[in-house]
Amino acid sequence: MTTTAVAYAAPSAKAPLEKTTVSRRAVGPHDVAIDIAFAGICHSDIHTVRDEWGEAHYPLTPGHEISGVVTAVGGSVASFAVGDRVGVGVMVDSCRQCDACADGEEQYCEQGMVGTYNDRGRDGDITQGGYSTAIVVDENYVLRIPDNLDLDVAAPLLCAGITVYSPLKHWGAGTGKRVAVIGLGGLGHMAVKFAAAMGAEVTVLSQSLSKKQDGLRMGATHYYATSDPETFPACHRSFDLIINTVSANLNLDTYLKLLARNGTLVEVGLPEHPMDVKAGSLINPRVSLAGSMIGGIAETQEMLDFAAQHGLASEIETIDAEQINEAYDRVVASDVRFRFVIDIDSLRN
Amino acid sequence: MTTTAVAYAAPSAKAPLEKTTVSRRAVGPHDVAIDIAFAGICHSDIHTVRDEWGEAHYPLTPGHEISGVVTAVGGSVASFAVGDRVGVGVMVDSCRQCDACADGEEQYCEQGMVGTYNDRGRDGDITQGGYSTAIVVDENYVLRIPDNLDLDVAAPLLCAGITVYSPLKHWGAGTGKRVAVIGLGGLGHMAVKFAAAMGAEVTVLSQSLSKKQDGLRMGATHYYATSDPETFPACHRSFDLIINTVSANLNLDTYLKLLARNGTLVEVGLPEHPMDVKAGSLINPRVSLAGSMIGGIAETQEMLDFAAQHGLASEIETIDAEQINEAYDRVVASDVRFRFVIDIDSLRN
Repeated sequence: MTTTAVAYAAPSAKAPLEKTTVSRRAVGPHDVAIDIAFAGICHSDIHTVRDEWGEAHYPLTPGHEISGVVTAVGGSVASFAVGDRVGVGVMVDSCRQCDACADGEEQYCEQGMVGTYNDRGRDGDITQGGYSTAIVVDENYVLRIPDNLDLDVAAPLLCAGITVYSPLKHWGAGTGKRVAVIGLGGLGHMAVKFAAAMGAEVTVLSQSLSKKQDGLRMGATHYYATSDPETFPACHRSFDLIINTVSANLNLDTYLKLLARNGTLVEVGLPEHPMDVKAGSLINPRVSLAGSMIGGIAETQEMLDFAAQHGLASEIETIDAEQINEAYDRVVASDVRFRFVIDIDSLRN
Repeated sequence: MTTTAVAYAAPSAKAPLEKTTVSRRAVGPHDVAIDIAFAGICHSDIHTVRDEWGEAHYPLTPGHEISGVVTAVGGSVASFAVGDRVGVGVMVDSCRQCDACADGEEQYCEQGMVGTYNDRGRDGDITQGGYSTAIVVDENYVLRIPDNLDLDVAAPLLCAGITVYSPLKHWGAGTGKRVAVIGLGGLGHMAVKFAAAMGAEVTVLSQSLSKKQDGLRMGATHYYATSDPETFPACHRSFDLIINTVSANLNLDTYLKLLARNGTLVEVGLPEHPMDVKAGSLINPRVSLAGSMIGGIAETQEMLDFAAQHGLASEIETIDAEQINEAYDRVVASDVRFRFVIDIDSLRN
């Protein structure tokens, strides 16, 4: 039976989000129904609802950093039971047949993964995200949230967390590796925590020193302001891996000079304009510019388990739903420490 | 005792190269004196003598694809003897103390390698290259040319050969790997031969099909014209490794779409303008844009031995020294199959 959930949605690109309802599909044999407890606010939500990335379908309920509790399961669901603490991230389906899906890298599904919101699901309907009281998701795209991880601070791990965990693992962050993180925001602060927990020596490259104490507390050993021209000579050829969490266009040639031989700079954001890179910046010494997008389902579970094991979580400001529009403006202004999370109970009253 | 060699040098950026002489240092304890037999013409020679890369010192004798025979050795030289067949590539010295030098990657020397021409040697003099009858080089930067490799076809291996061999090795070209080579010129044709000999499945992406028979003969399995818009959909997500030997600025986003998940596109040339890359082209699926510059001394020796073992060599057009200026124009027009090599005997008459 189709159900109705209360939601906060954008009626159009120019209008503020407002309270409304969304329809949720009947719980199929492989589905898990979830009462949502918290939903993180990701910068992607803002780009999408403001139609900055194109192809926005209104009314649009964003939200792909979802935590909650299972309320019902389909007859064929073996992995989850009512009462389980679960999460949903950026994708809710994929083709399950291509090489990427077979390799557990469903985020790179060759048919295109199905996004948690503003995407066309296999039933042909447009998906609606986690700024809502409930959601129904195929069990294969549902994550288990470990008991010692609170649901509010777990929510942002489902996108911000895995987005940085995956490249750190892929490029071998660990003991003896020098990792720099550009930007100490929602993604960056998790990158610092994960990289430090993996054993890497972590440096933060932030616009100013205003969050220096935070960065050091999270596990960074060094903290530099990129507004200080001394930073670049000081860090020349110092890093094996740089994770760039800043979506604004940076002077990449300047940052590539901070990579040691065989180092890699990984883009995890989507700058508005094409990036300008001199070939010489890559050729001598041999370095790479790469990209990475969230992570696969198994890797996302691994990340949640790793976070729980190491006592790591996102640092958040919890808001009620009616504060979403104001929070959007603050995210755009980088005025949040370090992630907004919506208390979905505020939609239930 | 300082000696004099006959040379072909550029008196200035705008003037044609002309016959002249260069001075060679006295053979020091660690030096090898070489009678040069052949010198390849590399596109870098042209960029340098025409001052397109800046910092040109005139008169300028280019040439860093050198083959010849040892005529004298210093008292401490153990590895080479008079009569040995040897080669000299792009560098004639490096600091020998940094991590790169310690790792046998002297090309990425942290103090900067000393180029074979137009660079300042440790004695303070500007180095002069291989368009000359003789050269004196420290034994640590001299390569041994295997007996079954003719000196004329070996010369271009010292730059063109190692420039493509090193990234093929570094990024694991071999059985089960799909390698594409952009451009079938001096570098590209060696990339095809090496990659095929390593066991990779090789595709050539050339502007037209005019060299298709050559490419297939050299070991490519597939050959596409990049002027044909059908090529890009046909090759979508088809390659694990792309070696770009073309120095002109290409639309890189188009080529990055040809990489399979986890693939790498390696730049080995130096396009004049910065490269434009969309972050999205790197992020989904996770791919890398990298650079690579020649190879270390040990790896260059390995490449020469590999070439000899597999019966591979550069395909050349041999010219006399007085044809150098005309050959330059033909190189710029991509009108050479596949490398010009100067018969240095023509300087001796």
